[in-house]
Amino acid sequence: MTGLRRVLVANRGEIAVRIVRACHAADVEAVAVYSDADENARWVRLADEAVHIGRSAAQKSYLDSDALLKAARSADVEAVHPGYGFLSENAAFARAIVEAGLVFVGPPPSAMEQMGDKAAARRAAQAAGVPVVPGSGPVDDPDDAVRAAEEVGYPLLVKAAAGGGGRGIRPVADAAELVDVLPGARAEARSAFGDGTVYLERAVPGARHVEVQVLADEHGNAVHLFERDCSVQRRRQKLLEEAPASDLRESTRQAITSAAVRLAEHVGYRNAGTVEFLVDADENFYFIEMNTRVQVEHPITEAITGVDVIAEQLRIAGGAVLALDQDSIERRGVAIEMRINAEDPERDFAPTPGEITALHLPGGPGVRVDTGIAQGDRISPFYDSLIAKLICWGADREQAYARARQALSEFHVEGVASTISLHRGLTADPRLRAGPVHTGWLEETRAGD
Amino acid sequence: MTGLRRVLVANRGEIAVRIVRACHAADVEAVAVYSDADENARWVRLADEAVHIGRSAAQKSYLDSDALLKAARSADVEAVHPGYGFLSENAAFARAIVEAGLVFVGPPPSAMEQMGDKAAARRAAQAAGVPVVPGSGPVDDPDDAVRAAEEVGYPLLVKAAAGGGGRGIRPVADAAELVDVLPGARAEARSAFGDGTVYLERAVPGARHVEVQVLADEHGNAVHLFERDCSVQRRRQKLLEEAPASDLRESTRQAITSAAVRLAEHVGYRNAGTVEFLVDADENFYFIEMNTRVQVEHPITEAITGVDVIAEQLRIAGGAVLALDQDSIERRGVAIEMRINAEDPERDFAPTPGEITALHLPGGPGVRVDTGIAQGDRISPFYDSLIAKLICWGADREQAYARARQALSEFHVEGVASTISLHRGLTADPRLRAGPVHTGWLEETRAGD
Repeated sequence: MTGLRRVLVANRGEIAVRIVRACHAADVEAVAVYSDADENARWVRLADEAVHIGRSAAQKSYLDSDALLKAARSADVEAVHPGYGFLSENAAFARAIVEAGLVFVGPPPSAMEQMGDKAAARRAAQAAGVPVVPGSGPVDDPDDAVRAAEEVGYPLLVKAAAGGGGRGIRPVADAAELVDVLPGARAEARSAFGDGTVYLERAVPGARHVEVQVLADEHGNAVHLFERDCSVQRRRQKLLEEAPASDLRESTRQAITSAAVRLAEHVGYRNAGTVEFLVDADENFYFIEMNTRVQVEHPITEAITGVDVIAEQLRIAGGAVLALDQDSIERRGVAIEMRINAEDPERDFAPTPGEITALHLPGGPGVRVDTGIAQGDRISPFYDSLIAKLICWGADREQAYARARQALSEFHVEGVASTISLHRGLTADPRLRAGPVHTGWLEETRAGD
Repeated sequence: MTGLRRVLVANRGEIAVRIVRACHAADVEAVAVYSDADENARWVRLADEAVHIGRSAAQKSYLDSDALLKAARSADVEAVHPGYGFLSENAAFARAIVEAGLVFVGPPPSAMEQMGDKAAARRAAQAAGVPVVPGSGPVDDPDDAVRAAEEVGYPLLVKAAAGGGGRGIRPVADAAELVDVLPGARAEARSAFGDGTVYLERAVPGARHVEVQVLADEHGNAVHLFERDCSVQRRRQKLLEEAPASDLRESTRQAITSAAVRLAEHVGYRNAGTVEFLVDADENFYFIEMNTRVQVEHPITEAITGVDVIAEQLRIAGGAVLALDQDSIERRGVAIEMRINAEDPERDFAPTPGEITALHLPGGPGVRVDTGIAQGDRISPFYDSLIAKLICWGADREQAYARARQALSEFHVEGVASTISLHRGLTADPRLRAGPVHTGWLEETRAGD
């Protein structure tokens, strides 16, 4: 059905569980990988086979391209699914997979490279007729930066060309601050992404973060699965996502989704990807970046469209023609995702690794919980602090939020502090319940806490 | 939103959990009830308050109308939701609720009485222009029965007028067998339903069981939520249900769903109800009975329509006008429900009460588990043996079954035997995967086991 027989799941946690399930439901064997810390993890138990790939530190396992390639060969898989995070947006890894004669479940390395370089991605967007925020090319020394900033306009953001996922971004109000910030931004970009290149982009205050899920096959077909609003953020990390974007004009929805498809087609994109935009109060939208992998928040798109994004990734990677045509993709209702992290909202979201001594998950109509954890497992300090994603669907926004409040009231984690209390507050917050917020809302709201 | 403030959940197990959740999601307080055996049960912990109603034996608690009424008064509720089973189809109970000045979340007692008397229900169906299987009025002595049987035709069924849910039914091949069976059938009907009246109904060999979910408000509006196929049965007990009925001609679907709505309108029905039909190989359909309560298998209807049946029950009971009009109700995909019972398929489905020492529930896109059990709880010998309902939705029938197989492979219950293995076999069975089966299929298939 997918054209694939056996797939290596080159990731961990809930997305590894998710991919194993999707493989099995498509009659594909799934081979898991694990580090020392993850020896008895849930995805390891669910998979058909599991390969130990190294030490607990991610650099020695999930970020070790050679270890993953070795695992792929020893387990005799024909494809590798990278999940999100880790090496999922690493074009060199994708290229190594392809050169080893395996299928990379993702876009061609060339598209990853183009979209991974944020400045190149901006140029591609412009060439595809997709609006971008005013911005510069790469800036080196302070003089150069200040000159470029005159064109871009303040306030602006200094962004790492190789960054992504909200990391490597510094807001700047004026020239003095820009000069101040530049060396640190370059150093940070170098250490975080292995590339010190930075560029400038005009800040769009009061904007929403709206992103469009696209799917493209290798036969020239591309579709969108509508959009998600991910404006509830803290330090540019998404906490709660919603699909579709509420109160968006239908004409804006049409324009932004077709812009996303246009960009995907322009860069020869393939497989699942997400085109991210800022949408200002007048519903002008501006391309920010494209994530060339499946997104953490893909389940809310699945909830409103009924399309299984991971299953589609596998089918596309197996060479199938997209079975979906745009007119057949309909949305129904509203879905929200809440990231339940092992972080303490009372202590500035400090991670709280430790053993999950009790785990009571909610359920019922419209409620889905994706987790890589079982009671008794440990949240490891080596990896991100995600305990579970809670996805709640409702026939309308009110029902989705009502179900979310009920689900959160049932959701109990013992052993570590979690962000459940934060989400209880968010889903009851009159401002959020009333309609969309902008990306700065949560931090402004909590500033007085 | 629902017009109700506080509701007594006069039931136990997964349906009690389901109703508590629906209440909360509708901003309604939920008061649970419990017997000695259920003191620390899951629905008790989820509810806003819980009232002890008596001993473990159902007759001394969940079937004790006075104890439930007393609980309703002491907990100061304004409405009572009866769930399914127990007193849910007991018109006298409903009448007592109404006479106590409370709202019964269900149909008017008069409609329950009419549909509860199977002979009266048949007459109502005929009057509403809904086809029924050839059948008789009540039959008393053997001579009377044999005379009536000449008209009805063999093979036939001897059915208890007050029966329901597949109980109190005896197949008969000829006159000799009829004379033989009659006294026992009458005695059984008297002891099981408190009424010894029986009647005859022509058997429809090779028929499917197809039922239509209806909703009606007190303002004269009635809609259907499409149909379910419940043909996978053992001893007339449903094991696996599917929505919609596969391979049903669209013209049959239209005819059968509008027949159900017509019957509901004819008897002044209100709230949620299910009209059950037999559908023969030529897609002729015949009314069997109407269940005047929410059905165990309602979640598959929720999965394909997106309508929350329990929430609608609460809204209707609160006096609201149906927010759904028929044209706005669309179905999407296919859903199946599997009943995971604490029964041993290897020992003729003998109940296996005991402590659930480990419980691993499946998850992922399209997967829902409704259960009243948590790890460490006991399956009590006093009540039915349902551990959980596993509901799997897919964009098509193939995906629904594939997800079901994966979910069943993850589903682990320790401490008691369960029907998980049976469902693993069923969902992999080529005959069932190929399309619809008739109600005798499972028993014929397993006869050679």
